[in-house]
Amino acid sequence: MRVKQFFLSTLKEAPAEAELASHKLMLRAGLIKKLGSGLYTWMPLGLRVLRKVENIVREEMDRAGAIELLMPAVQPAELWQESGRWGLFGPQMLKIKDRHDRDFCFGPTHEEVISDIVRREVKSYRLLPLNLYQIQTKFRDEIRPRFGVMRAREFVMKDAYSFHADKASLDQTYQAMHDAYSRVFERLGLKFRPVAADPGAIGGTCSHEFHVLADSGEDAIAYCPTSDYAANVELAEAIAPGVKRGAALQSINKVPTPGKKTCEAVAELLKLPLQNTVKAIVVMAGKVGDEKAVMLLLRGDHELNEIKAAKIPELRGLRLASGEEIQKHLMVPVGYMGPIALAKKPLIIADRSVDTMSDFVCGANDYGYHLTGVNWGRDLPEPNLVADIRSVVAGDPSPDGKGELQIARGIEVGHIFQLRTKYSKAMGVTFLDESGKSKVMEMGCYGIGVSRIVAAAIEQNYDERGIKWPRAMAPFDVYIAPIGYKKSPEVQVAAQKLHDEVAALGLEVLLDDRDERPGVMFADQELIGIPHRIVVSERGLKVNILEYQQRGEYEALKLDLQSVLEKLKLRS
Amino acid sequence: MRVKQFFLSTLKEAPAEAELASHKLMLRAGLIKKLGSGLYTWMPLGLRVLRKVENIVREEMDRAGAIELLMPAVQPAELWQESGRWGLFGPQMLKIKDRHDRDFCFGPTHEEVISDIVRREVKSYRLLPLNLYQIQTKFRDEIRPRFGVMRAREFVMKDAYSFHADKASLDQTYQAMHDAYSRVFERLGLKFRPVAADPGAIGGTCSHEFHVLADSGEDAIAYCPTSDYAANVELAEAIAPGVKRGAALQSINKVPTPGKKTCEAVAELLKLPLQNTVKAIVVMAGKVGDEKAVMLLLRGDHELNEIKAAKIPELRGLRLASGEEIQKHLMVPVGYMGPIALAKKPLIIADRSVDTMSDFVCGANDYGYHLTGVNWGRDLPEPNLVADIRSVVAGDPSPDGKGELQIARGIEVGHIFQLRTKYSKAMGVTFLDESGKSKVMEMGCYGIGVSRIVAAAIEQNYDERGIKWPRAMAPFDVYIAPIGYKKSPEVQVAAQKLHDEVAALGLEVLLDDRDERPGVMFADQELIGIPHRIVVSERGLKVNILEYQQRGEYEALKLDLQSVLEKLKLRS
Repeated sequence: MRVKQFFLSTLKEAPAEAELASHKLMLRAGLIKKLGSGLYTWMPLGLRVLRKVENIVREEMDRAGAIELLMPAVQPAELWQESGRWGLFGPQMLKIKDRHDRDFCFGPTHEEVISDIVRREVKSYRLLPLNLYQIQTKFRDEIRPRFGVMRAREFVMKDAYSFHADKASLDQTYQAMHDAYSRVFERLGLKFRPVAADPGAIGGTCSHEFHVLADSGEDAIAYCPTSDYAANVELAEAIAPGVKRGAALQSINKVPTPGKKTCEAVAELLKLPLQNTVKAIVVMAGKVGDEKAVMLLLRGDHELNEIKAAKIPELRGLRLASGEEIQKHLMVPVGYMGPIALAKKPLIIADRSVDTMSDFVCGANDYGYHLTGVNWGRDLPEPNLVADIRSVVAGDPSPDGKGELQIARGIEVGHIFQLRTKYSKAMGVTFLDESGKSKVMEMGCYGIGVSRIVAAAIEQNYDERGIKWPRAMAPFDVYIAPIGYKKSPEVQVAAQKLHDEVAALGLEVLLDDRDERPGVMFADQELIGIPHRIVVSERGLKVNILEYQQRGEYEALKLDLQSVLEKLKLRS
Repeated sequence: MRVKQFFLSTLKEAPAEAELASHKLMLRAGLIKKLGSGLYTWMPLGLRVLRKVENIVREEMDRAGAIELLMPAVQPAELWQESGRWGLFGPQMLKIKDRHDRDFCFGPTHEEVISDIVRREVKSYRLLPLNLYQIQTKFRDEIRPRFGVMRAREFVMKDAYSFHADKASLDQTYQAMHDAYSRVFERLGLKFRPVAADPGAIGGTCSHEFHVLADSGEDAIAYCPTSDYAANVELAEAIAPGVKRGAALQSINKVPTPGKKTCEAVAELLKLPLQNTVKAIVVMAGKVGDEKAVMLLLRGDHELNEIKAAKIPELRGLRLASGEEIQKHLMVPVGYMGPIALAKKPLIIADRSVDTMSDFVCGANDYGYHLTGVNWGRDLPEPNLVADIRSVVAGDPSPDGKGELQIARGIEVGHIFQLRTKYSKAMGVTFLDESGKSKVMEMGCYGIGVSRIVAAAIEQNYDERGIKWPRAMAPFDVYIAPIGYKKSPEVQVAAQKLHDEVAALGLEVLLDDRDERPGVMFADQELIGIPHRIVVSERGLKVNILEYQQRGEYEALKLDLQSVLEKLKLRS
């Protein structure tokens, strides 16, 4: 391919609104163009990358026995009413009225549609298991679209849905999808990690996320370097400390801590380790209209994990209490709150770590005062409940007992769920088993953010000059930069010959016939991230030399044509 | 591929609502499933066909130098307001409000978006011409979706848009697209015809439609078998008759024709050829609020062509007058109207054929009476205007003077337009020419109804047993029907060996491992339309014989494996 027959449009600077490296680089390299908030055109260069991802996803889905179909993007409201999600999915779902004033949505996901197809088409155990997938444009009306295609409103997704006669069959397909996803990300050349995850709004029981590791990732992942354990921090269990509660050595003491409203400030003032302090957080939980204030206790250096906490029956629907609510329900001063000397007695839930503390520091419920040397049993009753309500931190023991946790940042690019019978029950997806009895199907669903992978790959692979595509994702494999192209017929002929020889290796070549200066050509190639660059010049041709340089290497090699071709064969 | 690993779901009967053969067969063969009005899921079998069409379209677009990109489906209203089409496109455009109450549409076409991209990205003549295309799901909110994917609301379209420095360059790309489209339909194995067409709502000047020929086609096409001339009947010119108006031989005579309100009935009563009668049609035309009644005169055997007529300045905005309007504006009795003895004098426009008539019959503007022996000049003044306002009929002279027209039915599957500067002017798509002067770009656009092609191909290729796919579109090339599959290990082994040998030829094979009776397997293969069937049976294997039959042939050939493979090589 020649540049003039193709379409390149690079920018020196990215628009100011782009914050993330991948967003900046995708705009600068001309992979995407913004049409509106969260709406992007995939320009020819970007579409080549997107299609490569799509094809690898398709190949691995096919290999794993999934069958491709294509469902409509526009879905009738009735199906969502049947599953109960029409009102639940929230404003992310773009609702539409057609010309006859009937309700539809631009599908954010397809559990309902596929369930409807399968309940009509599949009546016998003989047709199970069945795993159907599609690669399709989806729409989610994000309240604040950002980061380019990383969190766009319109995006390309691979979504698969499997149906089973029993849980064992679901387990088998779930594992096959886990394996297929791993192969996808391996083939794409990405550093990734599958992690145990919270099923969230999609529902179901078991679920795993696949994360591309990158410092800019929105998610924190806890993993154990010495074992297989990996989970989203949202979910990772902070196991009970192996030590027992220490004996009380100090007596309780009320100390003035004016203006010190955080554990950090108090610890600093009192010259105590932060780990000796306890912070109290008041949340409202329970049914809307009948919410109750609950006091949560965490070690000063720990953070509340709202997702884990909300799974405790007493904390269902949990949200942080406002200053007014704290005043109204507990009448205690924010910044100096603690579990002792409470006028009104809320439920008190202590994190597992807090339960083992002794001689600790906490708020005195008196403005400007904290208590030191506090001990359970002696100074206050045992907590009403001890539970795992904090996020794990680096150094915590791994829940599998095989080492210590580390924390990494990740970008979620895949998510697999065991939905079990959540949708199949609601929508009557049944089959007749071998004995002719009607049973509800077990169901799994499996998503990959195809367009998001492009951005995630860049977050993991770039330098100050631009993108450094993994081999499988590069829009072109080889970039030919001819110097003095217009003036020199020799350069033209040699560049074309090189183009054809490289193409004959099965590689995708871009020949820059724009007659630009070397600096401009090199900057474009490095920005776009084409892995291999070959410079053709008159001076070189005289001595049968081409300059070959791999993206990321700092020096060019002077080689003859044959050696260049050998290098390319070895490296691609 | 084995049937059990794939997904087949055929029906004996199509749902009653399916009228068209292609719609019935697509539902019966399980190519598509209905989700809602005009919304269809492409089931695995149908998607294979759709992708084959898509790939051939893509290859030919690439070959013709067009470059693929992918624009968002959801488009901001602002661009449509800029082009002036937000209010004009009509209720076919699905309008959407996002969560911030901003206006969008689900793109029915992309002239606005591509114009916005090109005006930002392309500033110099050096980047022209440029031809960008996408293959994408579109949405048009048809008032009455029907005929399955033939006229669905959600459908797959290939849309290309070209930009040029001048008209000559547009002409060149237009021709290249014309050629590429012809190659697409040739490669698909379809009988088709490119015809001159009316640019309609998309606008512009020159335009051609590509029609797949089929008796069920919604469009009538006029073509000349002895020349290249072909045009949609909407547009085909009815040239002035070569004969001059005859001399008046009869005297005018008022005859009673009670109850005879049509030319056919009058001609029969008076025992005169239908061609001697003239029918009067009253239409309202002109600006809304200032419409005037106009009387149109056509020969009794001709039909008004509203699309051609509406292009006459006096008939702009034309619509048929209601009975009340005729009464109010002309005070004449419907069924007995004519151009003579009108109390109120409307504008009278005669078709070219009527202008050459003499001694003709027309309504007397008196209830129950017609006039015979009517002659222009003698009995009534010459018409205010003579124009081409009728549809051509078979036997009309070809406008190119090279023969007589024939009429065929066609299904529109492609449409190419020279938009000229309609959009580029409205949206400021300009470039700097070689002398640095700013100019408006010339523009073309080129559509192919990818999903509609699947239905059109079936309309052209089916019999009482099912679909007869052209080779390039068949979901599978070869179907292996093993008899007594479950019982016979020999049949299993031979069928698998045959499968592998056929696959090694590069053909797509479906091995039916369902253990169904031969009748069921054959009916499915013929319904689905897989071109080649090979039967493997124990009895045949004993004498090294397979039964090979091509779809559409009435007898099976008894051949050995090698001969079957030879046949397949020759025929595919």
